[in-house]
Amino acid sequence: MTELVAISHPDVPQGEMNALVDEAAAAGYTVALHRAGRRFLVFARPGYAAPPGSDFFRSKAYISDVISGNSAHPLGDRTRYPHGSTVQVGGIRFGGGQSVIIAGPCSAETPEVLLETAAKVRESGASMLRVGVFKPRTSPYTFQGLGAAAFEALIEARSRYGLPIVSEITSVSQLDALLSTVDMLQVGARNMQNYPLLSALGTCDRPVLLKRGLAATVDEWLSAAEYLLAGGNEQVVLCERGIRTYERSTRFTLDLGVVPVLKGRTHLPVIVDPSHGTGRADLIHPMSRAAIAAGADGVIVEVHPRPAQALSDGFQSLDLPGFKQLVTELEPVAQAVGRPLHAYSDLQPV
Amino acid sequence: MTELVAISHPDVPQGEMNALVDEAAAAGYTVALHRAGRRFLVFARPGYAAPPGSDFFRSKAYISDVISGNSAHPLGDRTRYPHGSTVQVGGIRFGGGQSVIIAGPCSAETPEVLLETAAKVRESGASMLRVGVFKPRTSPYTFQGLGAAAFEALIEARSRYGLPIVSEITSVSQLDALLSTVDMLQVGARNMQNYPLLSALGTCDRPVLLKRGLAATVDEWLSAAEYLLAGGNEQVVLCERGIRTYERSTRFTLDLGVVPVLKGRTHLPVIVDPSHGTGRADLIHPMSRAAIAAGADGVIVEVHPRPAQALSDGFQSLDLPGFKQLVTELEPVAQAVGRPLHAYSDLQPV
Amino acid sequence: MTELVAISHPDVPQGEMNALVDEAAAAGYTVALHRAGRRFLVFARPGYAAPPGSDFFRSKAYISDVISGNSAHPLGDRTRYPHGSTVQVGGIRFGGGQSVIIAGPCSAETPEVLLETAAKVRESGASMLRVGVFKPRTSPYTFQGLGAAAFEALIEARSRYGLPIVSEITSVSQLDALLSTVDMLQVGARNMQNYPLLSALGTCDRPVLLKRGLAATVDEWLSAAEYLLAGGNEQVVLCERGIRTYERSTRFTLDLGVVPVLKGRTHLPVIVDPSHGTGRADLIHPMSRAAIAAGADGVIVEVHPRPAQALSDGFQSLDLPGFKQLVTELEPVAQAVGRPLHAYSDLQPV
Amino acid sequence: MTELVAISHPDVPQGEMNALVDEAAAAGYTVALHRAGRRFLVFARPGYAAPPGSDFFRSKAYISDVISGNSAHPLGDRTRYPHGSTVQVGGIRFGGGQSVIIAGPCSAETPEVLLETAAKVRESGASMLRVGVFKPRTSPYTFQGLGAAAFEALIEARSRYGLPIVSEITSVSQLDALLSTVDMLQVGARNMQNYPLLSALGTCDRPVLLKRGLAATVDEWLSAAEYLLAGGNEQVVLCERGIRTYERSTRFTLDLGVVPVLKGRTHLPVIVDPSHGTGRADLIHPMSRAAIAAGADGVIVEVHPRPAQALSDGFQSLDLPGFKQLVTELEPVAQAVGRPLHAYSDLQPV
Repeated sequence: MTELVAISHPDVPQGEMNALVDEAAAAGYTVALHRAGRRFLVFARPGYAAPPGSDFFRSKAYISDVISGNSAHPLGDRTRYPHGSTVQVGGIRFGGGQSVIIAGPCSAETPEVLLETAAKVRESGASMLRVGVFKPRTSPYTFQGLGAAAFEALIEARSRYGLPIVSEITSVSQLDALLSTVDMLQVGARNMQNYPLLSALGTCDRPVLLKRGLAATVDEWLSAAEYLLAGGNEQVVLCERGIRTYERSTRFTLDLGVVPVLKGRTHLPVIVDPSHGTGRADLIHPMSRAAIAAGADGVIVEVHPRPAQALSDGFQSLDLPGFKQLVTELEPVAQAVGRPLHAYSDLQPV
Repeated sequence: MTELVAISHPDVPQGEMNALVDEAAAAGYTVALHRAGRRFLVFARPGYAAPPGSDFFRSKAYISDVISGNSAHPLGDRTRYPHGSTVQVGGIRFGGGQSVIIAGPCSAETPEVLLETAAKVRESGASMLRVGVFKPRTSPYTFQGLGAAAFEALIEARSRYGLPIVSEITSVSQLDALLSTVDMLQVGARNMQNYPLLSALGTCDRPVLLKRGLAATVDEWLSAAEYLLAGGNEQVVLCERGIRTYERSTRFTLDLGVVPVLKGRTHLPVIVDPSHGTGRADLIHPMSRAAIAAGADGVIVEVHPRPAQALSDGFQSLDLPGFKQLVTELEPVAQAVGRPLHAYSDLQPV
Repeated sequence: MTELVAISHPDVPQGEMNALVDEAAAAGYTVALHRAGRRFLVFARPGYAAPPGSDFFRSKAYISDVISGNSAHPLGDRTRYPHGSTVQVGGIRFGGGQSVIIAGPCSAETPEVLLETAAKVRESGASMLRVGVFKPRTSPYTFQGLGAAAFEALIEARSRYGLPIVSEITSVSQLDALLSTVDMLQVGARNMQNYPLLSALGTCDRPVLLKRGLAATVDEWLSAAEYLLAGGNEQVVLCERGIRTYERSTRFTLDLGVVPVLKGRTHLPVIVDPSHGTGRADLIHPMSRAAIAAGADGVIVEVHPRPAQALSDGFQSLDLPGFKQLVTELEPVAQAVGRPLHAYSDLQPV
Repeated sequence: MTELVAISHPDVPQGEMNALVDEAAAAGYTVALHRAGRRFLVFARPGYAAPPGSDFFRSKAYISDVISGNSAHPLGDRTRYPHGSTVQVGGIRFGGGQSVIIAGPCSAETPEVLLETAAKVRESGASMLRVGVFKPRTSPYTFQGLGAAAFEALIEARSRYGLPIVSEITSVSQLDALLSTVDMLQVGARNMQNYPLLSALGTCDRPVLLKRGLAATVDEWLSAAEYLLAGGNEQVVLCERGIRTYERSTRFTLDLGVVPVLKGRTHLPVIVDPSHGTGRADLIHPMSRAAIAAGADGVIVEVHPRPAQALSDGFQSLDLPGFKQLVTELEPVAQAVGRPLHAYSDLQPV
């Protein structure tokens, strides 16, 4: 493993970096240069000859950060921003000391359902809207989402209710359409290790919500984030959504321990999805409380006006009164741990 | 599966039950009689002939409860006590709307360490003392606990500080000694399916803390509790302590989702052990907060005055200031969810 | 779930199918029509009115198969081809009663390594060559494969040694290049649920090797295959490659039980990858023997002339004498279970 | 960790060992003495002063073995008997180059079923009889085995058919009765970490079949065996019986990779239980073949004359023709891997 990773400022000329590498090698480092989007990373290991300290790199004008190494994911490493980084989506800020609630239907089934849900979750206290347009479905014979046909309704929902929107991307071919419609791109559990997709998102200027793969280790997850960060996109929020274990009383096992684990290892904000994480609507309330108490920067929950009629995931969706109750319950817990619910009063009025 | 389980009062004569079984059979039920400690259980399935309603059993003088069946664990089933049962240990009550904190060293290494820890955790707000005397250790070549040599110190700790004590039992042969020394018997994860041990504890009049096996399903856990309940011992508290999964950033994966799952299925109180559940001292604070927020009736944590010198499990033990901080952090969360910390003021003064 | 799935011949006019659907509805079926590549699927559930038997569909000229339903993966279901289907790749046939050995380096590091390995594995008894060109790597900072630069060497290897080649595809954008170079396209574990990729491969006329996702259930795996089959590509071979469990003495847990499970549920051929499945070169021999004994149609193993110098996965690669020994050991086991090693004598001479 | 473990001959006087420890300390070792049944273990780590080689210990008359350390399970370590140890049960030898088939009913339901099964499995080629007397059952309300009532039938079965018998022990209180009835004591998965039970068996002179816990790591399993070995009982056979994973198409996931893993780490014989390991009668044939091909020293399978009527585990039991077919299929595979089926011709004639 390496001892140091020096991270360049954006857009440094390649020639300058080549010269730096030569200089470092002459000074006794074993050096590898890696291009990461608009930046370069210099992985440097001191040699047997007395090596210069990390000041060697810090003193260079075109170097932005030097992190002390052995991290497999240097750009996301907590040591880089010890107080955590924040990610801004519309008027919402993840990681800034407030708890964010994202809510909405599993998929945009009809414009009416989407608009009704958006109106009600905003009224109850959601800060952001989630909605599936391109759905990755286990079976090819089930409802696959409305696809592009949903875009008009999304735009309408955002303009009416001012809620930023997060939606899943499953293929690079959907990127342009989603960039012109939604505020944050979600990479779902099944695509956490879809590296061509991550690389494409790494070069975008749009926040990404990176869900944990359903059997991903913390290291694999942070490495997946590194594809985004190395590409130049530093607006990354991680989302725990349950892991696959032997236990069957819940659809997945929500791994809340990962929240403080991540807080110690990465500067990226972390939220929790108790809908997918448990697969049971009746567990959303207690597990949302627990997620906030464990230190999460927010939760993302599925809400549907009539869950029993939902085309997908109704069994893990709150109804509208259930969502209102959720916000009521979360408020005192969020206060108790010092990260109050996001004040959505600044959102554009209806 | 059965449709009804009729549970007798304690100590009903066998002859009365035999007569009832005959009467029920004549009335069209298929019936099985099972002795459960001081009680009998009648498993009854109505036949094709128009069966009498459950009033048939309810009307019998020697029947205490009739629960509507298909439950594999009728005595622990939530339908039996829809508001939950409570378990009293000394002045402490589990399941009664307060959050209980149990704290203490992994094992009673020396009388001094035990007494020092007891004094300090009581001062900081613990309601009960945990301490290992008989330690089940993975390797035969590691410290196995003090065994009976620790008993004097336990008695001293309780008499000085008034804290009820819970300690693990690993063999029926230890039962008499533990009964004369501790207030609650713990069945550890490795013994959750040690049915001869459970059966023996089922006939005791002493509360039992039943930890989840490290790969036990909820059903297996409730069935293990049923061995205790069927034996006649209804003073059972369940304890989630982490399950074994693929993830390695924590020693086990603390399954907090199981707390609300259990609350829906059993009337027994449920607590959480974040020390064993994560194997990391730095995760005890956030996961204790999360456990209480998820609905647990308490937490049990390892505390050692000098964790680095502990003979076992130091890496997952809080030090004394860390424990004090834990109580400070838990208080507002416990208030926020309406189950305040147990008021230990009634404990016998020092 | 449905009771019947009627599968059309390829290229039936849409109008004919619409008419059939109307007719079926009038006859009392609840019907859904689904286009699957060049075919249509009719999902039909009989109604309360006395429904016509499956002969209703079987008698229609444009219907090819009617399978009795409740299968979530009708096109791959064993009932469709009770004796199993076969997949032809060059001169190799999977599922036809012979055991196939696929061997080769994890990645095409240099043309020389590739050609040396190809020559030697052919000489020792491999029937097919595996080689990675586009490597999905957990970290963005590790060797990502040669990419298109490797194609010339692949073409050379095939023309010199006559071994068909399988290589992984990780993005639709690589499809044209791979189609003009390799004989079989591999979908790796990380992409098993990359549905846009599967859909694209479903419309190709090229065999696909579909590896199991590292935490995929059998149902999810068969559903992933269904995306290929529904697209019209019926040349699908499944490959068990180890699942993620708590056990750490092997990198993954090779689930050989899945081989007979699949043989009972799907007509598709099944092979096993003991290199990835265990992550240990020393386990390739015993687990290859076990795979063939369990009923697998072949194995795929990593071989490198100098594993210690491999740029990736050397720890799970056989060296050349080790591969020769593998074939020697597999031969009697393959004979013992009645599926002898593929006779590679028909391959084009060197 | 230690560098050396010196193992004494049995029954060396304590005083001699104390003297050795003093001498070793004076020579620069850090030493710990551990009593292991009739033997002593000296754990010795060389100090900073130039330490004497391991010859220091080897030269002592009362030392039997010196194994080079860092092993957490020195007595079972492969380095102690690099060619493997063997365990004799009646006329059967485990680990001696033959494949052993153990067969019999899950439990001794009636004497008739037991005797019928014994006669038939012997005729078909079983070398040993398995039968449950004390059954650990998940629920207290299901059939718990005949208990001591079955002993007479066991004795009759052995005397009639000459098959050695293995049966499970779940409590130390059953030990005397089982010692006078059966040839080998089985420790089931649920009791693999029941250390008081293991310690008691460690002081017996009776072979033990130690099943893997259903979520036990290889290290935990070897450590459990160490309790037996350290107690002085070296007649230990390990049995893989499936581990708990997320996959549900089989009841457990049979981990055949553990067979070669164990062969590299311990000298103890290893067999496989495909009945419990898969929970499906239809998988016993292929997984038995695979187990032998992977290097197992035998298999243990459930057989019942009428599986559909079995009081327990019928779904994972072969019927009598199925067992006969199993032997027929195993024979050529066992030959192919050079460990032919045990020749049972030496068994006492009927």
